[in-house]
Amino acid sequence: MADTQEYDIVVLGAGSGGYAASIRAAELGLKVALIEGDKVGGTCLHRGCIPTKALLHAAEVADEMRESESIGVRGTFDGIDMGELNQYKSSVVDRMYKGLTGLIKSHQIDTINGWGRLVDKNTVDVDGTLYRGKNVILASGSYSKTIGLDITGRVITSDQALNMDEVPGSAVILGGGVIGVEFASVWKSYGTDVTIIEGLPHLVPNEDESVSKNLERAFRKRGIKFKTKTMFDHVDQHENGVTVHTQDGKTFDADYLLVAIGRGPATANLGYEEAGISMDRGFVLTNDRLQTNVEGVYAVGDIVPGLQLAHRGFLQGIFVAEEIAGLNPKVIDETKIPRVTFCNPEIASVGLNQNTAEEKYGKENIEATEFNLAGNGKSQMLGTAGFVKLIREKDGPIVGFHAIGARMGEQVGEGELMVAWEAYPEDLEGLIHAHPTQNEAIGEAAMALAGKPLHTHN
Amino acid sequence: MADTQEYDIVVLGAGSGGYAASIRAAELGLKVALIEGDKVGGTCLHRGCIPTKALLHAAEVADEMRESESIGVRGTFDGIDMGELNQYKSSVVDRMYKGLTGLIKSHQIDTINGWGRLVDKNTVDVDGTLYRGKNVILASGSYSKTIGLDITGRVITSDQALNMDEVPGSAVILGGGVIGVEFASVWKSYGTDVTIIEGLPHLVPNEDESVSKNLERAFRKRGIKFKTKTMFDHVDQHENGVTVHTQDGKTFDADYLLVAIGRGPATANLGYEEAGISMDRGFVLTNDRLQTNVEGVYAVGDIVPGLQLAHRGFLQGIFVAEEIAGLNPKVIDETKIPRVTFCNPEIASVGLNQNTAEEKYGKENIEATEFNLAGNGKSQMLGTAGFVKLIREKDGPIVGFHAIGARMGEQVGEGELMVAWEAYPEDLEGLIHAHPTQNEAIGEAAMALAGKPLHTHN
Repeated sequence: MADTQEYDIVVLGAGSGGYAASIRAAELGLKVALIEGDKVGGTCLHRGCIPTKALLHAAEVADEMRESESIGVRGTFDGIDMGELNQYKSSVVDRMYKGLTGLIKSHQIDTINGWGRLVDKNTVDVDGTLYRGKNVILASGSYSKTIGLDITGRVITSDQALNMDEVPGSAVILGGGVIGVEFASVWKSYGTDVTIIEGLPHLVPNEDESVSKNLERAFRKRGIKFKTKTMFDHVDQHENGVTVHTQDGKTFDADYLLVAIGRGPATANLGYEEAGISMDRGFVLTNDRLQTNVEGVYAVGDIVPGLQLAHRGFLQGIFVAEEIAGLNPKVIDETKIPRVTFCNPEIASVGLNQNTAEEKYGKENIEATEFNLAGNGKSQMLGTAGFVKLIREKDGPIVGFHAIGARMGEQVGEGELMVAWEAYPEDLEGLIHAHPTQNEAIGEAAMALAGKPLHTHN
Repeated sequence: MADTQEYDIVVLGAGSGGYAASIRAAELGLKVALIEGDKVGGTCLHRGCIPTKALLHAAEVADEMRESESIGVRGTFDGIDMGELNQYKSSVVDRMYKGLTGLIKSHQIDTINGWGRLVDKNTVDVDGTLYRGKNVILASGSYSKTIGLDITGRVITSDQALNMDEVPGSAVILGGGVIGVEFASVWKSYGTDVTIIEGLPHLVPNEDESVSKNLERAFRKRGIKFKTKTMFDHVDQHENGVTVHTQDGKTFDADYLLVAIGRGPATANLGYEEAGISMDRGFVLTNDRLQTNVEGVYAVGDIVPGLQLAHRGFLQGIFVAEEIAGLNPKVIDETKIPRVTFCNPEIASVGLNQNTAEEKYGKENIEATEFNLAGNGKSQMLGTAGFVKLIREKDGPIVGFHAIGARMGEQVGEGELMVAWEAYPEDLEGLIHAHPTQNEAIGEAAMALAGKPLHTHN
């Protein structure tokens, strides 16, 4: 008979959602088993957010070096040293990983290194050892979707793109969403000739259309090529590269094809269906308290339909831990979760975009304003273009925050508070933003929306 | 008899306070004369915030280039080209200046180019032409204080430091406040050997002590020397440099002495006293509605005792315009005005620091938390140290926000909303910050203060 370990909570998967649930549960005095076949930290830490942002920071520095003479800083940019870059990337990941393992250990969470499989509503099997919990949290994460393509050689996903030992001479990127535009941005900064293929009418199609158009303008200026409304057909791989065929009969030759069409839920062969969990196209279905249809079994993170973001995983993990502990936390409102795309220019948004706001409230009941960064001193110093856009219900609260421009991702927190706390632009009366920051562009937009623009040109 | 022009408002001085008042008044339908002997935009645009931040951006790029090989970006840093740098700086100033003059023109504000003098409570004289307003707004700004030192040759203020054609080999900076530490930071990045002399026990003495200490640690690491609790005595200037003598009998040799001991109100010989305006040591006294003791005469900006910041000028200017227009605006709460120091690392703060909070509420009624940027992925990528500190009244709202670290100045807007809107850390429940941004350090600090830390190490 198998060895059995008893816990309050067994968490299957130690990515953002799983480890956040574990830490919060431990804080609340619950005994937790955290099961992970790979390293704790999951996709985000090891193959996602963190390593890509290291590449993006090197890209920013490369661009600044290329342009530095124009601002009076003499020097040269001599290219990317992939060995050194990968070491920098790994050093950041390693430091965060060490911090996280320390945090988990200090919370006296039992980390089980092995691949788990749900065997019933209370039990996860890891290589014959059974981990039984009063509750189980499914947090098995996601994988790069490939639409049936063979990921081998010069046809890669972000997993391989993060670990290259050369800068590609050229690349076709299939997909103009978050992952696609981030890699396009990185590689272009490193000197790669980049072409994005996107089926929808715009890059970053989930963003406000004005943001998409601004990004397209910026990418055009940067020499990043893109074909929107263009459907992929197939790819031929040869010794030195790929030929990508699109349905309109065109072909694109490049050294690599990066398949960046999104991430699917990693739920196959984990025993979920057999345990009676309701699923839909691989996603685990939950109610708004993140409970599955099976009592005591919860799900968090990328396997739950909705935004696939690490910080949504954190939020859901914390929620489920508090739910199990009986704290009755407030239901999560996904529309208040901030979104950042870390390409250059960066994109930040919270809440509704113009289209969804018009659908919800009616076109005549919406007011929007854009403050152009041409009027923002700090952005001018950075040489970036973009804007802050605020959308309000007429005579009502701000329901959407959108920003684009170099470094503008960092502005998302203030946008989040405005939208989440249903602020009126008039609530900013008597306040002023710090000069000269990029941050003050938010203040300018709010003042304009409140009918009292300061530095806004008509 | 002198020619006389009639207005609703005559504004004396077209810096941040004066032009903001003019624009807002014009929006409200008032006829405005804006009198300025120099260029519209004032100190901030021409000799303050904007040009210094251009120098600081070049400093950031220089530092990144020096360190770039360690993140895999190959290249060299070959020094500063002051000609090119000054051109970049001027191009940013010129663009902002052009935008501002366009804005003033489009609001049909009459700009009078000449030095004005108040002749009575309704009248400003410019070279014999009288500009009469139902109301007058005094906005004559500030100048670099010199404690009686002769500003000539190698003894300079920020006015000269902004227009140098060489990078100093060495410099002594008298004053470790905002202006002093910003120039120390710039020059060190350019290669100057820098020593700051400060009489008080800490650099940036108006900030939370933990911030001052963190800055001192960072400056030590950067090789910026500083002597605190050290009183200046006198300076000898010779052909190739200066010798600075301090009261403890020590001497400091350098190429330049930058006198950065603050800014005084520019109110001398403008007719204020003669018109019966109450003054104190050169400052114009007002009530909390920014009215002087003389009916119809208001004052805004650096001549009014309090924080000398461009955006305070904006806020006061807008306030006075609305006051005159009869909108009865809410009295400005100066404790809600954000403060940013743009040295590297940057400093941001709003509200009370630990000491002032303890004084106000009692030590036992205050809780504070610091989230160390060592636990923040994006900050690790930037290679910066620092923290976000939140101070709350026990079981009460957040009353102080403090941050230090590269680029952390941009986080001040969210801090401002928290403090100004008297948010409880618990109000952030159900919200999550975007990963991996520097911004999420605020969320981590708030979670820790609400008793539910996520990535906080004990």
